[in-house]
Amino acid sequence: METLQTLAQMLTEVKSKKPLVHHITNYVTVNDCANIVLALGGSPVMADDEGEVAEMVGLASALVLNIGTLNERTIRSMFAAGKRANEKGVPVVLDPVGAGATPLRTETAGRLMKEVKLAVLRGNLSEIKTLYGAEGATRGVDSTADASGAREIAVEMARKHRCVVAITGAQDVVTDGKRTGFIDNGHPLLSQVTGTGCMATSLVGCFCGVTRDSYLAALAGIMALGLAGEKAQAGLGDGGTGTFRISLVDVISRLESCDVLKGGKLTEKDG
Amino acid sequence: METLQTLAQMLTEVKSKKPLVHHITNYVTVNDCANIVLALGGSPVMADDEGEVAEMVGLASALVLNIGTLNERTIRSMFAAGKRANEKGVPVVLDPVGAGATPLRTETAGRLMKEVKLAVLRGNLSEIKTLYGAEGATRGVDSTADASGAREIAVEMARKHRCVVAITGAQDVVTDGKRTGFIDNGHPLLSQVTGTGCMATSLVGCFCGVTRDSYLAALAGIMALGLAGEKAQAGLGDGGTGTFRISLVDVISRLESCDVLKGGKLTEKDG
Amino acid sequence: METLQTLAQMLTEVKSKKPLVHHITNYVTVNDCANIVLALGGSPVMADDEGEVAEMVGLASALVLNIGTLNERTIRSMFAAGKRANEKGVPVVLDPVGAGATPLRTETAGRLMKEVKLAVLRGNLSEIKTLYGAEGATRGVDSTADASGAREIAVEMARKHRCVVAITGAQDVVTDGKRTGFIDNGHPLLSQVTGTGCMATSLVGCFCGVTRDSYLAALAGIMALGLAGEKAQAGLGDGGTGTFRISLVDVISRLESCDVLKGGKLTEKDG
Repeated sequence: METLQTLAQMLTEVKSKKPLVHHITNYVTVNDCANIVLALGGSPVMADDEGEVAEMVGLASALVLNIGTLNERTIRSMFAAGKRANEKGVPVVLDPVGAGATPLRTETAGRLMKEVKLAVLRGNLSEIKTLYGAEGATRGVDSTADASGAREIAVEMARKHRCVVAITGAQDVVTDGKRTGFIDNGHPLLSQVTGTGCMATSLVGCFCGVTRDSYLAALAGIMALGLAGEKAQAGLGDGGTGTFRISLVDVISRLESCDVLKGGKLTEKDG
Repeated sequence: METLQTLAQMLTEVKSKKPLVHHITNYVTVNDCANIVLALGGSPVMADDEGEVAEMVGLASALVLNIGTLNERTIRSMFAAGKRANEKGVPVVLDPVGAGATPLRTETAGRLMKEVKLAVLRGNLSEIKTLYGAEGATRGVDSTADASGAREIAVEMARKHRCVVAITGAQDVVTDGKRTGFIDNGHPLLSQVTGTGCMATSLVGCFCGVTRDSYLAALAGIMALGLAGEKAQAGLGDGGTGTFRISLVDVISRLESCDVLKGGKLTEKDG
Repeated sequence: METLQTLAQMLTEVKSKKPLVHHITNYVTVNDCANIVLALGGSPVMADDEGEVAEMVGLASALVLNIGTLNERTIRSMFAAGKRANEKGVPVVLDPVGAGATPLRTETAGRLMKEVKLAVLRGNLSEIKTLYGAEGATRGVDSTADASGAREIAVEMARKHRCVVAITGAQDVVTDGKRTGFIDNGHPLLSQVTGTGCMATSLVGCFCGVTRDSYLAALAGIMALGLAGEKAQAGLGDGGTGTFRISLVDVISRLESCDVLKGGKLTEKDG
């Protein structure tokens, strides 16, 4: 498939271009995000002080904003970094961790979407539905728990915000409002380790550093983590979730184009 | 033994109920705490901004306060979250990391104990003795370095604060002032990895999410970590403390009721 | 070689004296720093609130300042801790992570070097060159990309600041301005894991806790991490960078004097 071949090539490009990915992210999974970006071939940098984020993002190939442990101080930094990224043409990826759990999260994610032009929004169905609903959804949020509902919400949000929307779950949905891709890679064990969503977002950020097509970047990052989940589980033996988490980084550090070509499970549709 | 059977059942309940455990904790071991809670079957959430902790704890089945890297901002959040937890009937577990090392830690832990009703206080002997002494101990603190001294201090503090006090060490002591349990699980290697105390506290928080009997919750959490230490060491081979730490999560993710029944080393006494 | 024997002895001393190493460090690699210090035999403590750093550093055998995720609040704490360490005669090790990337980092590192007497400054060539240039370098910075240039810069900075300067890279250079050591241990894989520089700095801090000769402490810490990199890679098999990172801690936790004597690759020169 043509798209798979492009995704496989992008993996090679990350290794040669080593894009710098500026993160303002949570302190729970930050080490995993840094190591997964390094494993893919990128170069992570974490910087969250308002006094330096504008300069740092100016050096970067992509900006990842992750609200997992947001606070008043880092929220200010996210806006400063996001706006500067927009000025500089640096793609911005938002992970609205926990949107829906508290007003602070829902409102911060919503404001970021309004005030910062995103390249990619990546969340789980609950988070994305919350943001969709908070904007005055055109269809009932509660009725959209299934995968087809996910697609409709994602497409509508992608068109409204002119960004790529990715909803990850058993089947991942990625759309820019014109093209939609469904990824069937992954393993349920991924939900028993903290930070696998964050890592997927960081990988998306990394791929955004080597292509202007954010739809392809989102597909590539999410598929890479799905493939890692499959391979890590396959080699787990007697291991548990601790070993599984370490193996995710192992697999990404050894991932090659042929793994994407052979293992990638992608279905694409128009619209 | 009857208590062991109850603890074994509680393990099953965590897996079925998946209690949400809200943490305000340190940035050193936070990833380990999140992953060990997930491994047990619970659902961790880390949130420390004063603007959201009250809402977040309202969704939770337990609140874990850990002062390992406390600061002015997160201290305020701990009080806000703790008081709201009390209003909502959400059990609060306190880990007074480093109490005794600095006045900030000793005083913060002391104030938390005064202003927030705790379900469980878990620390090492040095930390608990500090808090005991800071309250105007009725017996000399320096003379109580042994296990029987630990028991006396724990019982007195448990009665005064009407909470469970757990002192972990070579032998762990857990008491609610009426019942006292001594746990002989664990391994010395646990002291060569950072965060094993924090992880024990997080597991206690997780069990607090499925029972109103905080004494049993403390026993279950501390015993689970002790069993993990034993099994991780037994399978270590040529590995070192890095592998040991990952294995702790592995073992917890595979822990079953029969492991508790077969491996749990518990002695109980009245008073 | 005489120096190697001293370094090997220092390893034994860390295990017997268990020096307390106070860190004010970044939240990306803080867990690795804590675990590598524990693995070596030291005792790490992380504390960054301005309200307690002066007391904490008073209990410590060394202070590590790492600006990896500096912010306004922790910068204040670094100066407070550094100054108190100077008053108390506690050796201070600075890791100027990312100096050169943003003015905030360059200026903070520069101010720390002016206002706090350092025992050791450890960075990569880019960071140290930035600090050298920011001070009004006596030779062109751009012309000093090679190892001999590294030596000249390190010696000049060491003499000016009367501290040990260590520049880590393919070959590590350590100097106090009179003696210079070149270390040829290590493995390229170390650059594909986040925090290996931070861990080296933490190990240096740990060794500073058992000797007044900061030159030897810097050699010992940097060589230990280099040896860990070699051994971790040698045993990696099918593993990737995730396993490699865990193995670094494993190796350090099993490192013995004979490993230093047999494996240490050190060349020393005067001046």
